[in-house]
Amino acid sequence: MALNNLSNREHYGRLKPVERQLMGKVRFSITMSLDGFVAGPDQSKENPLGVGGMALHEWLFELEAWRKSHGERGGVVNPSTPVVEELESGYGAVVMGRNMFGPIRGPWEDESWRGWWGGNPPYHTPVFVLTHHERGAAEMEGETTFHFVTDGIESALARAQRAAGHRDVLIAGGASVTRQFLRAGLIDEFRLSLVPILLGGGERLLDNLRGSTSLEQVEVIEAPGVTHLKYRCNA
Amino acid sequence: MALNNLSNREHYGRLKPVERQLMGKVRFSITMSLDGFVAGPDQSKENPLGVGGMALHEWLFELEAWRKSHGERGGVVNPSTPVVEELESGYGAVVMGRNMFGPIRGPWEDESWRGWWGGNPPYHTPVFVLTHHERGAAEMEGETTFHFVTDGIESALARAQRAAGHRDVLIAGGASVTRQFLRAGLIDEFRLSLVPILLGGGERLLDNLRGSTSLEQVEVIEAPGVTHLKYRCNA
Repeated sequence: MALNNLSNREHYGRLKPVERQLMGKVRFSITMSLDGFVAGPDQSKENPLGVGGMALHEWLFELEAWRKSHGERGGVVNPSTPVVEELESGYGAVVMGRNMFGPIRGPWEDESWRGWWGGNPPYHTPVFVLTHHERGAAEMEGETTFHFVTDGIESALARAQRAAGHRDVLIAGGASVTRQFLRAGLIDEFRLSLVPILLGGGERLLDNLRGSTSLEQVEVIEAPGVTHLKYRCNA
Repeated sequence: MALNNLSNREHYGRLKPVERQLMGKVRFSITMSLDGFVAGPDQSKENPLGVGGMALHEWLFELEAWRKSHGERGGVVNPSTPVVEELESGYGAVVMGRNMFGPIRGPWEDESWRGWWGGNPPYHTPVFVLTHHERGAAEMEGETTFHFVTDGIESALARAQRAAGHRDVLIAGGASVTRQFLRAGLIDEFRLSLVPILLGGGERLLDNLRGSTSLEQVEVIEAPGVTHLKYRCNA
Protein backbone atom coordinates (compact mmCIF):
# COMPACT_ATOMS: atom_id res chain seq x y z
CA MET A 1 0.00 0.00 0.00
CA ALA A 2 1.49 3.31 -1.12
CA LEU A 3 0.42 5.09 2.05
CA ASN A 4 2.43 2.72 4.23
CA ASN A 5 5.33 5.12 4.76
CA LEU A 6 3.19 8.10 5.69
CA SER A 7 2.53 9.21 9.23
CA ASN A 8 -1.04 8.82 10.36
CA ARG A 9 -1.69 12.55 10.07
CA GLU A 10 -0.28 12.66 6.55
CA HIS A 11 -2.21 9.53 5.69
CA TYR A 12 -5.40 11.03 7.06
CA GLY A 13 -4.74 14.33 5.33
CA ARG A 14 -4.60 12.60 1.93
CA LEU A 15 -7.88 10.78 2.34
CA LYS A 16 -10.93 12.08 0.54
CA PRO A 17 -13.78 13.30 2.78
CA VAL A 18 -15.85 10.24 1.87
CA GLU A 19 -12.99 7.97 2.93
CA ARG A 20 -12.66 9.79 6.26
CA GLN A 21 -16.35 9.30 6.89
CA LEU A 22 -15.86 5.57 6.42
CA MET A 23 -13.16 5.42 9.09
CA GLY A 24 -14.06 4.75 12.68
CA LYS A 25 -13.09 6.98 15.59
CA VAL A 26 -9.92 6.80 17.63
CA ARG A 27 -11.11 6.66 21.20
CA PHE A 28 -10.24 5.67 24.72
CA SER A 29 -12.05 5.24 28.00
CA ILE A 30 -10.38 5.47 31.38
CA THR A 31 -11.29 5.76 35.04
CA MET A 32 -9.83 8.69 36.96
CA SER A 33 -9.89 9.71 40.62
CA LEU A 34 -11.34 13.12 41.45
CA ASP A 35 -7.79 14.37 42.00
CA GLY A 36 -6.74 13.28 38.50
CA PHE A 37 -4.97 9.94 38.90
CA VAL A 38 -5.55 6.83 36.79
CA ALA A 39 -3.29 4.73 39.04
CA GLY A 40 -2.20 5.21 42.63
CA PRO A 41 1.38 5.72 43.88
CA ASP A 42 4.02 2.94 44.03
CA GLN A 43 2.88 0.73 41.14
CA SER A 44 4.46 -2.74 41.20
CA LYS A 45 3.98 -6.21 39.75
CA GLU A 46 1.95 -7.12 42.85
CA ASN A 47 0.08 -3.82 42.76
CA PRO A 48 -0.24 -2.86 39.07
CA LEU A 49 -2.69 -0.04 39.82
CA GLY A 50 -0.62 1.36 42.69
CA VAL A 51 -1.62 1.87 46.31
CA GLY A 52 -5.36 2.45 46.54
CA GLY A 53 -5.75 2.13 42.77
CA MET A 54 -8.10 -0.85 42.83
CA ALA A 55 -10.78 1.41 44.32
CA LEU A 56 -10.89 3.17 40.95
CA HIS A 57 -12.62 0.19 39.35
CA GLU A 58 -15.13 -0.89 41.97
CA TRP A 59 -17.95 0.60 39.87
CA LEU A 60 -16.82 -1.62 36.97
CA PHE A 61 -16.17 -4.93 38.73
CA GLU A 62 -19.68 -5.06 40.21
CA LEU A 63 -21.35 -4.79 36.79
CA GLU A 64 -22.95 -7.82 35.17
CA ALA A 65 -21.87 -6.48 31.74
CA TRP A 66 -18.20 -6.45 32.75
CA ARG A 67 -18.30 -9.76 34.62
CA LYS A 68 -19.94 -11.51 31.68
CA SER A 69 -17.25 -10.39 29.20
CA HIS A 70 -14.60 -11.60 31.66
CA GLY A 71 -16.14 -15.03 32.18
CA GLU A 72 -17.73 -14.31 35.56
CA ARG A 73 -21.31 -14.61 36.74
CA GLY A 74 -23.62 -12.31 38.66
CA GLY A 75 -23.35 -8.57 39.05
CA VAL A 76 -25.64 -5.57 38.77
CA VAL A 77 -27.24 -3.56 35.98
CA ASN A 78 -27.24 0.22 36.46
CA PRO A 79 -26.59 3.43 34.46
CA SER A 80 -22.94 2.35 34.03
CA THR A 81 -24.05 -0.69 32.00
CA PRO A 82 -24.42 1.03 28.60
CA VAL A 83 -21.05 2.72 29.18
CA VAL A 84 -19.34 -0.66 29.44
CA GLU A 85 -21.32 -2.11 26.57
CA GLU A 86 -20.28 0.82 24.38
CA LEU A 87 -16.66 0.48 25.44
CA GLU A 88 -16.61 -3.22 24.60
CA SER A 89 -18.22 -2.97 21.17
CA GLY A 90 -17.79 -1.13 17.90
CA TYR A 91 -14.01 -1.30 17.71
CA GLY A 92 -12.00 -3.29 15.19
CA ALA A 93 -8.49 -2.94 16.58
CA VAL A 94 -6.72 -2.01 19.80
CA VAL A 95 -3.50 -0.15 20.58
CA MET A 96 -1.84 -0.51 23.97
CA GLY A 97 1.44 0.25 25.68
CA ARG A 98 3.85 -2.40 26.75
CA ASN A 99 3.21 -1.79 30.46
CA MET A 100 -0.43 -2.52 29.87
CA PHE A 101 0.51 -5.75 28.10
CA GLY A 102 2.75 -6.99 30.89
CA PRO A 103 5.24 -6.25 33.67
CA ILE A 104 8.37 -7.27 31.71
CA ARG A 105 10.83 -4.44 30.91
CA GLY A 106 13.71 -4.35 28.42
CA PRO A 107 14.20 -6.96 25.65
CA TRP A 108 11.82 -9.91 25.58
CA GLU A 109 13.72 -12.81 27.22
CA ASP A 110 11.43 -15.25 25.45
CA GLU A 111 7.90 -15.10 24.09
CA SER A 112 6.19 -16.93 26.95
CA TRP A 113 4.43 -13.83 28.36
CA ARG A 114 1.19 -13.46 26.43
CA GLY A 115 -0.59 -10.75 28.42
CA TRP A 116 -2.54 -10.57 31.68
CA TRP A 117 -5.72 -12.02 30.23
CA GLY A 118 -5.14 -15.80 29.85
CA GLY A 119 -5.58 -17.76 26.62
CA ASN A 120 -8.68 -15.89 25.44
CA PRO A 121 -8.19 -12.13 25.99
CA PRO A 122 -11.30 -9.91 26.01
CA TYR A 123 -10.34 -7.97 22.84
CA HIS A 124 -11.23 -10.38 19.99
CA THR A 125 -9.46 -8.14 17.42
CA PRO A 126 -5.85 -7.37 16.45
CA VAL A 127 -4.03 -5.64 19.33
CA PHE A 128 -0.99 -3.50 18.52
CA VAL A 129 1.44 -3.38 21.45
CA LEU A 130 3.94 -0.52 21.49
CA THR A 131 7.44 -1.65 22.44
CA HIS A 132 11.06 -0.78 21.71
CA HIS A 133 11.93 -4.47 21.26
CA GLU A 134 10.90 -6.61 18.31
CA ARG A 135 8.91 -9.75 18.80
CA GLY A 136 6.76 -12.04 16.67
CA ALA A 137 2.98 -11.84 16.77
CA ALA A 138 1.09 -13.93 19.32
CA GLU A 139 -2.14 -15.48 18.11
CA MET A 140 -4.60 -16.14 20.92
CA GLU A 141 -7.97 -17.81 21.15
CA GLY A 142 -11.06 -15.79 20.29
CA GLU A 143 -9.46 -13.88 17.39
CA THR A 144 -7.18 -11.72 19.51
CA THR A 145 -3.71 -11.40 17.97
CA PHE A 146 -0.98 -9.35 19.65
CA HIS A 147 1.26 -7.53 17.17
CA PHE A 148 4.37 -5.77 18.42
CA VAL A 149 5.11 -2.34 16.93
CA THR A 150 8.54 -0.77 17.37
CA ASP A 151 8.23 2.40 15.28
CA GLY A 152 5.98 4.59 17.40
CA ILE A 153 2.37 5.58 18.01
CA GLU A 154 1.57 6.95 14.55
CA SER A 155 2.70 3.73 12.89
CA ALA A 156 0.75 1.62 15.40
CA LEU A 157 -2.35 3.74 14.79
CA ALA A 158 -2.03 3.50 10.99
CA ARG A 159 -1.80 -0.30 11.23
CA ALA A 160 -4.70 -0.42 13.66
CA GLN A 161 -6.86 1.77 11.43
CA ARG A 162 -6.19 -0.44 8.43
CA ALA A 163 -7.14 -3.48 10.51
CA ALA A 164 -10.24 -1.78 11.93
CA GLY A 165 -11.64 -0.54 8.61
CA HIS A 166 -14.77 1.46 9.32
CA ARG A 167 -14.79 0.43 12.96
CA ASP A 168 -13.17 2.35 15.83
CA VAL A 169 -9.64 2.02 17.13
CA LEU A 170 -9.54 1.67 20.89
CA ILE A 171 -6.52 3.03 22.74
CA ALA A 172 -6.55 0.66 25.70
CA GLY A 173 -3.84 2.35 27.81
CA GLY A 174 -1.89 2.73 29.94
CA ALA A 175 -1.84 6.34 30.93
CA SER A 176 1.49 7.17 29.31
CA VAL A 177 0.53 5.86 25.87
CA THR A 178 -2.91 7.45 26.08
CA ARG A 179 -1.31 10.79 26.97
CA GLN A 180 1.06 10.47 23.99
CA PHE A 181 -1.95 10.02 21.68
CA LEU A 182 -3.72 13.02 23.25
CA ARG A 183 -0.60 15.17 22.98
CA ALA A 184 -0.21 14.25 19.30
CA GLY A 185 -3.81 15.27 18.61
CA LEU A 186 -4.72 11.77 17.40
CA ILE A 187 -7.75 11.13 19.66
CA ASP A 188 -11.25 11.82 18.32
CA GLU A 189 -13.25 11.14 21.45
CA PHE A 190 -12.76 9.91 25.00
CA ARG A 191 -14.63 8.95 28.10
CA LEU A 192 -13.52 9.75 31.64
CA SER A 193 -15.19 7.79 34.40
CA LEU A 194 -14.67 10.06 37.40
CA VAL A 195 -14.65 8.33 40.79
CA PRO A 196 -15.01 10.22 44.10
CA ILE A 197 -11.75 9.10 45.69
CA LEU A 198 -8.60 11.08 46.44
CA LEU A 199 -5.47 9.01 45.65
CA GLY A 200 -3.12 11.85 46.52
CA GLY A 201 -0.41 10.64 44.14
CA GLY A 202 0.32 8.23 41.29
CA GLU A 203 -0.04 8.52 37.55
CA ARG A 204 -1.85 11.50 36.04
CA LEU A 205 -3.53 11.13 32.68
CA LEU A 206 -4.09 14.80 31.86
CA ASP A 207 -0.60 16.12 32.45
CA ASN A 208 1.07 18.83 30.42
CA LEU A 209 -1.55 18.83 27.67
CA ARG A 210 -2.11 22.57 27.30
CA GLY A 211 -2.85 23.40 23.68
CA SER A 212 -2.77 19.81 22.46
CA THR A 213 -6.49 19.64 21.77
CA SER A 214 -9.72 21.55 22.28
CA LEU A 215 -12.55 19.67 23.92
CA GLU A 216 -16.30 19.60 23.65
CA GLN A 217 -18.40 18.00 26.35
CA VAL A 218 -20.80 15.64 24.57
CA GLU A 219 -22.33 13.39 27.24
CA VAL A 220 -22.64 13.10 31.03
CA ILE A 221 -23.97 9.98 32.76
CA GLU A 222 -24.52 9.89 36.52
CA ALA A 223 -24.18 6.37 37.94
CA PRO A 224 -23.65 4.86 41.41
CA GLY A 225 -20.21 5.91 42.65
CA VAL A 226 -19.04 7.30 39.30
CA THR A 227 -19.77 9.98 36.69
CA HIS A 228 -19.10 9.13 33.04
CA LEU A 229 -18.02 12.16 31.01
CA LYS A 230 -17.55 12.02 27.23
CA TYR A 231 -15.54 14.61 25.28
CA ARG A 232 -14.93 15.18 21.58
CA CYS A 233 -11.43 16.36 20.70
CA ASN A 234 -10.35 19.12 18.30
CA ALA A 235 -13.91 20.41 18.45
CA MET B 1 -19.19 33.02 75.30
CA ALA B 2 -17.40 30.19 77.08
CA LEU B 3 -16.70 28.31 73.85
CA ASN B 4 -14.75 31.21 72.40
CA ASN B 5 -11.34 29.71 73.14
CA LEU B 6 -12.09 26.29 71.70
CA SER B 7 -11.07 25.14 68.25
CA ASN B 8 -13.93 24.55 65.86
CA ARG B 9 -13.62 20.77 66.17
CA GLU B 10 -13.63 20.94 69.96
CA HIS B 11 -16.51 23.36 69.82
CA TYR B 12 -18.43 21.10 67.48
CA GLY B 13 -17.61 18.03 69.59
CA ARG B 14 -19.19 19.64 72.66
CA LEU B 15 -22.44 20.51 70.96
CA LYS B 16 -25.50 18.37 71.64
CA PRO B 17 -26.89 16.49 68.60
CA VAL B 18 -29.87 18.83 68.46
CA GLU B 19 -27.53 21.83 68.33
CA ARG B 20 -25.52 20.26 65.47
CA GLN B 21 -28.69 19.73 63.51
CA LEU B 22 -29.44 23.43 63.84
CA MET B 23 -26.09 24.39 62.33
CA GLY B 24 -25.75 24.93 58.61
CA LYS B 25 -23.25 23.15 56.39
CA VAL B 26 -19.71 24.23 55.65
CA ARG B 27 -19.48 24.22 51.89
CA PHE B 28 -17.67 25.55 48.88
CA SER B 29 -18.17 25.66 45.15
CA ILE B 30 -15.38 26.02 42.65
CA THR B 31 -14.76 25.69 38.92
CA MET B 32 -12.00 23.34 37.84
CA SER B 33 -10.43 22.52 34.48
CA LEU B 34 -10.55 18.90 33.34
CA ASP B 35 -6.86 18.62 34.22
CA GLY B 36 -7.48 19.77 37.79
CA PHE B 37 -6.62 23.47 37.88
CA VAL B 38 -8.71 26.22 39.49
CA ALA B 39 -6.40 28.92 38.12
CA GLY B 40 -3.97 28.93 35.21
CA PRO B 41 -0.19 29.42 35.42
CA ASP B 42 1.50 32.78 36.11
CA GLN B 43 -1.16 34.50 38.23
CA SER B 44 -0.62 38.24 38.57
CA LYS B 45 -2.48 41.40 39.55
CA GLU B 46 -3.35 41.89 35.87
CA ASN B 47 -4.22 38.23 35.45
CA PRO B 48 -5.62 37.05 38.81
CA LEU B 49 -6.82 33.74 37.36
CA GLY B 50 -3.54 33.05 35.56
CA VAL B 51 -2.96 32.47 31.85
CA GLY B 52 -6.06 30.97 30.28
CA GLY B 53 -7.89 30.98 33.61
CA MET B 54 -10.73 33.27 32.53
CA ALA B 55 -11.99 30.47 30.28
CA LEU B 56 -12.90 28.58 33.46
CA HIS B 57 -15.78 30.93 34.14
CA GLU B 58 -17.34 31.45 30.73
CA TRP B 59 -20.24 29.17 31.71
CA LEU B 60 -20.88 31.48 34.69
CA PHE B 61 -20.49 34.91 33.13
CA GLU B 62 -23.12 34.22 30.47
CA LEU B 63 -25.80 33.37 33.03
CA GLU B 64 -28.60 35.79 33.78
CA ALA B 65 -28.57 34.62 37.42
CA TRP B 66 -24.92 35.58 37.84
CA ARG B 67 -25.17 38.84 35.90
CA LYS B 68 -28.16 39.97 37.94
CA SER B 69 -26.39 39.47 41.27
CA HIS B 70 -23.42 41.43 39.91
CA GLY B 71 -25.49 44.36 38.67
CA GLU B 72 -25.47 43.42 35.00
CA ARG B 73 -28.31 42.84 32.57
CA GLY B 74 -29.06 40.12 30.05
CA GLY B 75 -27.74 36.60 29.97
CA VAL B 76 -29.12 33.11 29.55
CA VAL B 77 -31.05 30.62 31.65
CA ASN B 78 -29.90 27.00 31.42
CA PRO B 79 -29.25 23.98 33.70
CA SER B 80 -26.43 25.94 35.38
CA THR B 81 -28.94 28.50 36.68
CA PRO B 82 -30.10 26.56 39.79
CA VAL B 83 -26.44 25.83 40.60
CA VAL B 84 -25.67 29.54 40.81
CA GLU B 85 -28.89 30.30 42.67
CA GLU B 86 -28.02 27.64 45.25
CA LEU B 87 -24.47 28.95 45.57
CA GLU B 88 -25.69 32.49 46.16
CA SER B 89 -28.34 31.67 48.76
CA GLY B 90 -28.68 29.86 52.07
CA TYR B 91 -25.42 31.00 53.62
CA GLY B 92 -25.08 33.31 56.59
CA ALA B 93 -21.34 33.95 56.59
CA VAL B 94 -18.33 33.66 54.31
CA VAL B 95 -14.68 32.74 54.88
CA MET B 96 -12.04 33.69 52.31
CA GLY B 97 -8.29 33.86 51.99
CA ARG B 98 -6.41 37.08 51.72
CA ASN B 99 -5.46 36.51 48.06
CA MET B 100 -9.13 36.24 47.25
CA PHE B 101 -9.78 39.54 49.04
CA GLY B 102 -7.08 41.43 47.19
CA PRO B 103 -3.64 41.51 45.58
CA ILE B 104 -1.83 43.19 48.50
CA ARG B 105 0.82 41.06 50.30
CA GLY B 106 2.50 41.63 53.68
CA PRO B 107 1.23 44.14 56.28
CA TRP B 108 -1.69 46.38 55.29
CA GLU B 109 -0.13 49.71 54.29
CA ASP B 110 -3.45 51.41 54.96
CA GLU B 111 -7.05 50.29 54.94
CA SER B 112 -8.01 51.73 51.57
CA TRP B 113 -8.25 48.35 49.78
CA ARG B 114 -11.77 47.06 50.42
CA GLY B 115 -11.94 44.07 48.06
CA TRP B 116 -12.43 43.55 44.33
CA TRP B 117 -16.18 44.04 44.43
CA GLY B 118 -16.79 47.80 44.77
CA GLY B 119 -18.88 49.45 47.49
CA ASN B 120 -21.61 46.80 47.56
CA PRO B 121 -19.99 43.32 47.45
CA PRO B 122 -22.18 40.36 46.42
CA TYR B 123 -21.97 38.60 49.81
CA HIS B 124 -24.45 40.57 52.00
CA THR B 125 -23.24 38.77 55.16
CA PRO B 126 -20.17 38.92 57.42
CA VAL B 127 -17.03 37.84 55.52
CA PHE B 128 -14.07 36.54 57.52
CA VAL B 129 -10.79 37.19 55.69
CA LEU B 130 -7.79 35.07 56.74
CA THR B 131 -4.62 37.14 57.08
CA HIS B 132 -1.43 37.21 59.13
CA HIS B 133 -1.77 40.96 59.64
CA GLU B 134 -4.32 42.63 61.90
CA ARG B 135 -6.73 45.16 60.53
CA GLY B 136 -10.03 46.71 61.58
CA ALA B 137 -13.32 45.53 60.13
CA ALA B 138 -14.61 47.17 56.93
CA GLU B 139 -18.34 47.79 56.78
CA MET B 140 -19.67 47.91 53.26
CA GLU B 141 -23.03 48.64 51.70
CA GLY B 142 -25.58 45.85 51.46
CA GLU B 143 -24.72 44.31 54.86
CA THR B 144 -21.34 42.90 53.85
CA THR B 145 -18.74 43.44 56.57
CA PHE B 146 -15.15 42.24 56.13
CA HIS B 147 -13.59 40.97 59.37
CA PHE B 148 -9.89 40.12 59.44
CA VAL B 149 -8.91 36.96 61.30
CA THR B 150 -5.27 36.33 62.23
CA ASP B 151 -5.49 33.10 64.25
CA GLY B 152 -6.19 30.48 61.59
CA ILE B 153 -8.91 28.62 59.74
CA GLU B 154 -10.56 26.94 62.72
CA SER B 155 -10.99 30.26 64.49
CA ALA B 156 -12.34 31.89 61.35
CA LEU B 157 -14.78 29.04 60.90
CA ALA B 158 -15.97 29.19 64.52
CA ARG B 159 -16.64 32.92 64.15
CA ALA B 160 -18.39 32.38 60.82
CA GLN B 161 -20.56 29.61 62.25
CA ARG B 162 -21.64 31.79 65.14
CA ALA B 163 -22.50 34.57 62.70
CA ALA B 164 -24.33 32.19 60.34
CA GLY B 165 -26.46 30.48 62.97
CA HIS B 166 -28.49 27.78 61.29
CA ARG B 167 -27.42 28.92 57.83
CA ASP B 168 -24.41 27.60 55.88
CA VAL B 169 -20.88 28.90 55.95
CA LEU B 170 -19.49 29.44 52.47
CA ILE B 171 -15.76 28.98 51.94
CA ALA B 172 -15.30 31.41 49.04
CA GLY B 173 -11.66 30.54 48.19
CA GLY B 174 -9.05 30.80 46.96
CA ALA B 175 -7.70 27.36 46.25
CA SER B 176 -5.12 27.36 49.02
CA VAL B 177 -7.59 28.22 51.79
CA THR B 178 -10.17 25.80 50.41
CA ARG B 179 -7.54 23.04 50.36
CA GLN B 180 -6.62 23.81 53.99
CA PHE B 181 -10.27 23.36 54.98
CA LEU B 182 -10.50 20.08 53.05
CA ARG B 183 -7.28 18.80 54.56
CA ALA B 184 -8.51 19.61 58.07
CA GLY B 185 -11.73 17.66 57.45
CA LEU B 186 -13.88 20.77 58.03
CA ILE B 187 -15.92 20.70 54.79
CA ASP B 188 -19.36 19.07 54.78
CA GLU B 189 -20.15 19.35 51.09
CA PHE B 190 -18.73 20.83 47.92
CA ARG B 191 -19.50 21.43 44.30
CA LEU B 192 -16.98 21.11 41.46
CA SER B 193 -17.95 22.71 38.18
CA LEU B 194 -15.81 20.79 35.71
CA VAL B 195 -14.98 22.63 32.48
CA PRO B 196 -13.58 20.89 29.36
CA ILE B 197 -10.38 22.88 29.06
CA LEU B 198 -6.76 21.82 29.62
CA LEU B 199 -4.81 24.58 31.41
CA GLY B 200 -1.66 22.48 31.61
CA GLY B 201 -0.43 24.22 34.77
CA GLY B 202 -1.44 26.59 37.54
CA GLU B 203 -3.07 26.05 40.90
CA ARG B 204 -4.48 22.64 41.77
CA LEU B 205 -7.32 22.39 44.25
CA LEU B 206 -7.19 18.67 45.01
CA ASP B 207 -3.51 18.31 45.83
CA ASN B 208 -2.08 16.04 48.47
CA LEU B 209 -5.43 15.23 50.04
CA ARG B 210 -5.12 11.45 50.36
CA GLY B 211 -6.92 10.27 53.50
CA SER B 212 -8.19 13.72 54.47
CA THR B 213 -11.82 12.89 53.74
CA SER B 214 -14.02 10.23 52.17
CA LEU B 215 -16.42 11.40 49.49
CA GLU B 216 -19.89 10.49 48.37
CA GLN B 217 -21.17 11.63 44.98
CA VAL B 218 -24.58 13.19 45.64
CA GLU B 219 -25.54 15.11 42.48
CA VAL B 220 -24.49 15.50 38.83
CA ILE B 221 -25.85 18.24 36.57
CA GLU B 222 -24.97 18.39 32.87
CA ALA B 223 -25.05 21.94 31.50
CA PRO B 224 -23.67 23.69 28.40
CA GLY B 225 -19.87 23.63 28.59
CA VAL B 226 -19.71 22.42 32.18
CA THR B 227 -20.64 19.53 34.48
CA HIS B 228 -21.62 20.34 38.07
CA LEU B 229 -20.62 17.59 40.51
CA LYS B 230 -21.64 17.66 44.17
CA TYR B 231 -19.90 15.60 46.86
CA ARG B 232 -20.57 15.01 50.55
CA CYS B 233 -17.47 14.72 52.73
CA ASN B 234 -16.70 12.22 55.49
CA ALA B 235 -19.51 10.10 54.14
